[in-house]
Formats: sequence, C-alpha cells, structure tokens
Amino acid sequence: MKLESRFWMSVEGEKVFGRGPYVLLKTVDRLGSLNKAAKELNMSYSKAWAIIRRAERLLGYNLLTSVTGGADGGGSCLTPKAKDLLKAYEGFIEEAEEAVEMIYDKFFKDI
Amino acid sequence: MKLESRFWMSVEGEKVFGRGPYVLLKTVDRLGSLNKAAKELNMSYSKAWAIIRRAERLLGYNLLTSVTGGADGGGSCLTPKAKDLLKAYEGFIEEAEEAVEMIYDKFFKDI
Repeated sequence: MKLESRFWMSVEGEKVFGRGPYVLLKTVDRLGSLNKAAKELNMSYSKAWAIIRRAERLLGYNLLTSVTGGADGGGSCLTPKAKDLLKAYEGFIEEAEEAVEMIYDKFFKDI
Repeated sequence: MKLESRFWMSVEGEKVFGRGPYVLLKTVDRLGSLNKAAKELNMSYSKAWAIIRRAERLLGYNLLTSVTGGADGGGSCLTPKAKDLLKAYEGFIEEAEEAVEMIYDKFFKDI
C-alpha cells in the first residue's frame, strides 16, 4: 500500500493554484510562450489561457507578461510574482511530501 | 489563500482507501449497519457495498462481518483489522494535516 497526496491552494473554496497551473507555468517559463507550452502539454491555447486568467483573477496579480518582437515574434514570460509563487510551491511540495511519507510510515508500518 | 490537501492509499495505482471509505466505515461502526450507514450518507446500498468490497479485495482482508439476530434483525460490524485501519488513518490524517499546514505557512507566508 502506497500513500498518494494532492495539494492545492484555494480562495473562498475556489481552487486557485495547484499541480496543473504549476506545470503550465513551468513550461511557459522554459519555452517562453504560452502557445508552445499549451502544445507541449496537449492542451488547447484557450484552455491554457483560461487557467492562467483564472489563477490571476483569484490571486489578484498577473502571472504572465507579453514579450513582443524577437526572432520568434514574441511570447510570454513569468512575472516576478509568478516566479515567487512557483518557488514557494516547489519548496512546499518537496517538504510536504517528505513529511507525509514519514508520518504515513509511522502509522501504517504495521497495517 | 488556504491550503487544501487530500490523501489516499493505493495499490498498483488503484485507490484502496481514503476519505470516502473512511467515512463509510466510521458510520457503519456507529450505526452497526451498512444499510443504515448508506442511508445516512445518501448513498445506495449497492454503492456502499461496492466500496467495501473493492477495499477488501485490494487490502486482502475483510473489513465488515455480519451480525445476525438481535432486536434490529442483525447488521454489520467492523473487523479488528478494519478498526486498526481506521485508527491508523485517523492518526495519520491528524499529524499530516498539521505538518503540511506548518510547511505551507513557512513557504507561503510572504506570498
């Protein structure tokens, strides 16, 4: 038997941020484009855009800024606040998963 | 922003035990009957029965035993292994939720 866990953040019961938006933002950060990120994740551009807009609305700040020009004709990059959010989420997930594994082992070792 | 978490146990990717079966078993334990527990939880008897059977199959042991006779014409009670499982789950959930809250506060206090 193996422990599985899922964590997300909510505001007034509405899901604000979790694994989905995290993966999307990480991919935008790597590829420099929401369009390319959506393609890589087999997601429609409109769905990717909706995920970002929803998170931005609930968080109350922008996650992406548009970059114009350049060889690729522009793209998107993460705002400093989005980078802080990803960093916090990564730190949290790493420590939380380690902690719950230990607690799980403690209670379920004889089960 | 508030942290939400969900924990469950799996065997080879299949969900074995989590909040749903936990609440069902606790209710059976309190009411002494799977039928009454299903009614209280607004669940069909066949669904409640399927949840228990599935968990039993994946865990490899019985969770409920039938009690016959008595004023109510019989019912169900939890096996000792089911009681151990509930106790482990409760201990785990309590400590895990406290731990992840603390870790969340640490990483998200300035977010």
